[in-house]
Amino acid sequence: MRIAILGCGGLGKAAAKMIEQKEEITLVAVCDKDGFLIQEEGIDPKIIYNLSPQQSITEIGKASEDTIGEIIKASKNIDGILITLPNLPNDFIPSIATRFVENGFEGAFSDPLKRTQAMQIMFTKDELFKKSKSTYLSGTGATPGLLSAAAVLASQSFIKVEKVDIFWGVGIENWEEYKGTIREDIAHLEGYTPEKAKAMSDQEIKELLDKTDGKLEFHNMQHADDILLQKVGVIETLDQCTVGGIMDTRSSKKPVTTTMTLTGKTFDGKTSSHKFMLGDETTMAANVLGPALGYLKRAIWLKQHNIYGIFGSTEFMPMVVK
Amino acid sequence: MRIAILGCGGLGKAAAKMIEQKEEITLVAVCDKDGFLIQEEGIDPKIIYNLSPQQSITEIGKASEDTIGEIIKASKNIDGILITLPNLPNDFIPSIATRFVENGFEGAFSDPLKRTQAMQIMFTKDELFKKSKSTYLSGTGATPGLLSAAAVLASQSFIKVEKVDIFWGVGIENWEEYKGTIREDIAHLEGYTPEKAKAMSDQEIKELLDKTDGKLEFHNMQHADDILLQKVGVIETLDQCTVGGIMDTRSSKKPVTTTMTLTGKTFDGKTSSHKFMLGDETTMAANVLGPALGYLKRAIWLKQHNIYGIFGSTEFMPMVVK
Repeated sequence: MRIAILGCGGLGKAAAKMIEQKEEITLVAVCDKDGFLIQEEGIDPKIIYNLSPQQSITEIGKASEDTIGEIIKASKNIDGILITLPNLPNDFIPSIATRFVENGFEGAFSDPLKRTQAMQIMFTKDELFKKSKSTYLSGTGATPGLLSAAAVLASQSFIKVEKVDIFWGVGIENWEEYKGTIREDIAHLEGYTPEKAKAMSDQEIKELLDKTDGKLEFHNMQHADDILLQKVGVIETLDQCTVGGIMDTRSSKKPVTTTMTLTGKTFDGKTSSHKFMLGDETTMAANVLGPALGYLKRAIWLKQHNIYGIFGSTEFMPMVVK
Repeated sequence: MRIAILGCGGLGKAAAKMIEQKEEITLVAVCDKDGFLIQEEGIDPKIIYNLSPQQSITEIGKASEDTIGEIIKASKNIDGILITLPNLPNDFIPSIATRFVENGFEGAFSDPLKRTQAMQIMFTKDELFKKSKSTYLSGTGATPGLLSAAAVLASQSFIKVEKVDIFWGVGIENWEEYKGTIREDIAHLEGYTPEKAKAMSDQEIKELLDKTDGKLEFHNMQHADDILLQKVGVIETLDQCTVGGIMDTRSSKKPVTTTMTLTGKTFDGKTSSHKFMLGDETTMAANVLGPALGYLKRAIWLKQHNIYGIFGSTEFMPMVVK
């Protein structure tokens, strides 16, 4: 699989590090907002993940005012696109994905998109992607992604699902490694919007984190797990799925074990809960990017089988990437 | 979905009870070894699950010396076949499935097959099913099935999987409800074979159970989870997957919580374990037949998308059946 990474923040760099350990993947293109690097014969992932948070791809590649446009020009050589851009505002990632197919790209996409409204915009593009013979899997990270797919599996034992509860714990040593992710999460806090979070300076984020000893706690997040589970019929109403979590930005130790709990009623009248729990030692990067690449392989498989359009991560099994 | 149930023991009857609660499914054919019942307009599931363990389908349908042959004759009207026959000996289910496609059936199959050797025989039929434009999903119960699919999901977070451990607990009040299943399980005990277990009289099974206060404990079972996980690349060698369990045949309370534990190493060097745990109140029937019907819907979907052949339950997501 020849793949491109769009976005080279914390997640993009971690993706490069993961790809270095995957024989099946050749990284052929990377961009951030200022620079891009395209090498048909393959980019050494080290030069990507060794960039510091302060460095831009311009230092190892070329500068451009339209780095996405540059990747699109080279996209004949790309099978799959992994999108690790921060999705601020809500229509940012949908608009970029759309540009690819409107400019003749035919291929596969995987996007660990989180926010409900962004996903809703994405699904309105289904016809366009079908016509363009492209396959886009959305919500392919940890949640939605790994945990919502686990909810689909868990639902199999029940005749009626009552509730899906996802509560995650993330611990990172330094918030500056994941500036985009943290801003996206802050946008879920009461009193914040994606626009407001995007506009915050690093200093303002530091001050916010200082007030809470580096911890952020979230309840009733607008995570797209709900619409993805509704789409496949696991739940009927969106309020049956709740997502929350605790992020510690000053310690890599998780403040709580990430757990998906699905409660339902069985055909023989029992009420019970299945659980899917992620090991505390696994990082956000491992749990987001592993699935995102597994789903990218599935998206390529679907395209090879003439199955096109926009799908959620609850609709297909991610594949193992060697 | 117009479906047929082959085999009307404890699992077949429970499947009928589950189907009664599924709007999307019409039951059009059922058989056991002595009798069959075919009704194009739909069979009332009640008349199936109300049969006692001592009654045969001949009491509500017709007798035949070749009940499978009778279902095959009517198979133009069938979209999907759920196989709930006891798989003794190992080539029994593969031979029945093969008969269907050799006699012109084009459709979908789901089979909660468990034993490794039986599954290996099944996979040798792949070409035949591809040519016959039929799609067969195998190992679609709880384990393999629900738990091995959960292992595929869990593996996504890891660069290298070290071990998959599946340990199940089953509690049933009366072993006679699941005579076929219990015999299949006994075949896994040291000193037993599928042939020997099949030849045991009910009295001999009772005596065996009396010795252990109704409990049977299994380690290193020949469960096909191993080959299904190897097929998709989650594990490299079969010994990386172990399956065991404890069955209590005298209480519906589970003696142990059914748990899949996958241990691996992440791209960033951490060793950790993800877990998938089934609620103690959920019965074997709920955890086997829910997935089996979800995979049958997926098999029908795959056939509709021209994807034919024999596949394992680790390769696709089961679908939600309303």
